[in-house]
Amino acid sequence: MISSPTSAAPRGHFAGRSLGDLAADLRRRRTTATDLARHALDAVARLDPLVNAFTTVSADEALAAARQADRELADGLDRGPLHGIPVAVKDVIMVAGRPVTMGSRHFAGHVPTTDADCVRRLKEAGAVLVGQTTTHEFAYGPTGDRSATGPSRNPRDPGRMSGGSSGGSAVAVAAGMVPLAIGTDTGGSVRIPAALCGTAGFKPAYGVLPTGGVFPLSKTYDHVGLLAASAEDCRIAYHALVTGGRPSAEHASRVGWLDPRTLFPVDARVLRSARTVLESSTGPLDELRVPQRVAEELREAYTAIQSGEAAAVHAERLAERPDLFDPEVLDRLRAAATVPAWRYVRGLKARPRLADAVDALFERHDVLALPTVPIVAPLIDRREVDLDGGRVGVRDALLALTSPWNVLGLPALTVPAGTVDGLPTGLQLICRIGEEHRLFETAARAVPRTDHESPLIGESHVH
Amino acid sequence: MISSPTSAAPRGHFAGRSLGDLAADLRRRRTTATDLARHALDAVARLDPLVNAFTTVSADEALAAARQADRELADGLDRGPLHGIPVAVKDVIMVAGRPVTMGSRHFAGHVPTTDADCVRRLKEAGAVLVGQTTTHEFAYGPTGDRSATGPSRNPRDPGRMSGGSSGGSAVAVAAGMVPLAIGTDTGGSVRIPAALCGTAGFKPAYGVLPTGGVFPLSKTYDHVGLLAASAEDCRIAYHALVTGGRPSAEHASRVGWLDPRTLFPVDARVLRSARTVLESSTGPLDELRVPQRVAEELREAYTAIQSGEAAAVHAERLAERPDLFDPEVLDRLRAAATVPAWRYVRGLKARPRLADAVDALFERHDVLALPTVPIVAPLIDRREVDLDGGRVGVRDALLALTSPWNVLGLPALTVPAGTVDGLPTGLQLICRIGEEHRLFETAARAVPRTDHESPLIGESHVH
Repeated sequence: MISSPTSAAPRGHFAGRSLGDLAADLRRRRTTATDLARHALDAVARLDPLVNAFTTVSADEALAAARQADRELADGLDRGPLHGIPVAVKDVIMVAGRPVTMGSRHFAGHVPTTDADCVRRLKEAGAVLVGQTTTHEFAYGPTGDRSATGPSRNPRDPGRMSGGSSGGSAVAVAAGMVPLAIGTDTGGSVRIPAALCGTAGFKPAYGVLPTGGVFPLSKTYDHVGLLAASAEDCRIAYHALVTGGRPSAEHASRVGWLDPRTLFPVDARVLRSARTVLESSTGPLDELRVPQRVAEELREAYTAIQSGEAAAVHAERLAERPDLFDPEVLDRLRAAATVPAWRYVRGLKARPRLADAVDALFERHDVLALPTVPIVAPLIDRREVDLDGGRVGVRDALLALTSPWNVLGLPALTVPAGTVDGLPTGLQLICRIGEEHRLFETAARAVPRTDHESPLIGESHVH
Repeated sequence: MISSPTSAAPRGHFAGRSLGDLAADLRRRRTTATDLARHALDAVARLDPLVNAFTTVSADEALAAARQADRELADGLDRGPLHGIPVAVKDVIMVAGRPVTMGSRHFAGHVPTTDADCVRRLKEAGAVLVGQTTTHEFAYGPTGDRSATGPSRNPRDPGRMSGGSSGGSAVAVAAGMVPLAIGTDTGGSVRIPAALCGTAGFKPAYGVLPTGGVFPLSKTYDHVGLLAASAEDCRIAYHALVTGGRPSAEHASRVGWLDPRTLFPVDARVLRSARTVLESSTGPLDELRVPQRVAEELREAYTAIQSGEAAAVHAERLAERPDLFDPEVLDRLRAAATVPAWRYVRGLKARPRLADAVDALFERHDVLALPTVPIVAPLIDRREVDLDGGRVGVRDALLALTSPWNVLGLPALTVPAGTVDGLPTGLQLICRIGEEHRLFETAARAVPRTDHESPLIGESHVH
């Protein structure tokens, strides 16, 4: 059922190289941070014309930071597992002195003067910032193909969307340009492109990675998240950025299978792919379901709150310079601006009740598993696809299985789960707040080492 | 400028009798709680046909509670200053076993099974609950003249509105039917009818009197408040219901005059009446102003948040049984349901900034003084009045000087400030959260004993 890629294409230096490997190599002097930065810059120069992962690359700054990292290591100052590691940062996260545009003409040439909190943590951890990655305009869209800087493209097939909104971050990791990228996730914006591009993506519990200095989409749901080749690399980066993470679980996590079809129709091959990769290690899984009414209320709470907050962020721009928006983003923001306040109020009020309803699913399970996205990557600009005998909206489909966990602020991890027609699929793991370690433990047990060696760019698909 | 009433009319037993007098009489055995309850019931029977203050009177329960209060006092159990005192409760506050209708046909015959938190406190303080007082339907209106149980009428002129939404509570006190009544105040619903009817009315800081068991209008702004003949009686009742009140101020409060005209046009005679009664004791006052932009943002934050929350409360009723609403209330709720979520979000976001802006007004003053309402009581059903050379909406006028303090949750007290054309006016005092004692101290210093002996019902005014 899990099809194999059929042709190969150029990949960056970091394809197949884990953060653990890189850290070991750095400390054994087999490589240097400067070498790694150069490899990243070379890969970007070579591959980015094909996939448009980056909006800005800051070679001089990256090399300077890398030399500093090398000096520190030589002097015995070791900042931990991200020390000297090239990292890409989504173009909605402020980095002092670098152009950060939100993928929008409204912010063309914008250069922040202060680092976002998560960027400060990256720098303190010794990471080397390579550049800014393409975002769907204002992070307002899961397709990744509406941006003032052009669409980010899926490395498995550049005619297909990367997913979004952290599309460039997923592409940069999937193409081996960097081993780690930072994204944001309001309804799935880390996990969706990770799944469509074949990387791991991790959204911690709400608020654990600080959102200070991140351009807001919807404050109630905005999360900062991590993209890397594997769950293990996400875990390493997470613990490097967040103190106080818990050690490994005291017992093997009990994993339940959450039937995704009460949330949205799912491509049967995608569903089977995700389930098979999990069951091959866990054996038969208990079946769980989100009650239909809870599923509907989760969707409504997501839409009402996200719409109200997004329209509030952009009210002046909508009134004064609508022409600077991408037309589709403009239409969607205008629609969001009509969502009535009473639905927002109801959404906020529903959340504790919905949290209780979902918490009940964890009564006998530590981790819930389901596909990350119900389809594989559609062609760029495609807005409807056939699914399960009907037509569905691409945006609705992309968000359907990820956004419920943003409503509740639950930790969520996506890991590669094989391919369908040569296109990646994702397995999503969800847990209670404070139990993030169970996601990593489950992923380590259930999912074999990512198929680092599989080919990327250049496959041909029926469009 | 402060005109005198010109004719007399029947008044209830409690006109001119303070809580302090009543408490002393009870303990000196000059009266009993049973006598007081009978006086209240007699006054209601005699006067309520003229003013419609009450929706339900529970004579048997009141007399039983009064006898119990008498037994306790005889046995040496003294529950404090409200022990044996007849109290009326607004018809949106749950009282177990009594009909509570929200002034709406939607709740005709509704009998709650549990007391609201504030009712439980009243009972624990020994108060004798006489009955439910008329509310504007669902407390959604400051005029007090739209209710399934008919309009409450101003005791000074029953052709005029009481103000609302706690209209019945103000009327019951103003007409001497009870010495104390409980109301709710979301934008001025305690203070407005208090001012128009010539009583005192006190809204503590947000959340100090619990709203549990009160039918919601707008959670962010809903307050429980007290109505009594004088500020001193409000103070006594407040301290009987809330523990931990601070003692008298360490220095005489510094009172500033807040020019109300950046908030709304004000009848010059009403303005002079309020200012004169204050200046006669304080001497010349410093002039302060709410900056125009702050005034506008306060109004917007009030409207957006209150509309969204009110429409959320009533969404099912609006969809399923619109016919059961009063037509004006229905129109207003339908309009509220169209307020977009982004304005709600902006309103919430503005509040800390607005709190800072208003806090700056307190830099050199402990108490801000302004009129409570910019006009005297209009005729019932009147929706526009001439003011300051133009036409203004009655609802806008009634709410204009009170609602800003709900946005910020500040303590606010209105006290009678003489009459204009024989109709009462109010002086409103505002302070910082936690400084409620300054309001009472200022009122005691500035305002002479309420004109308890002035006549009420039966004056004739030019309509």
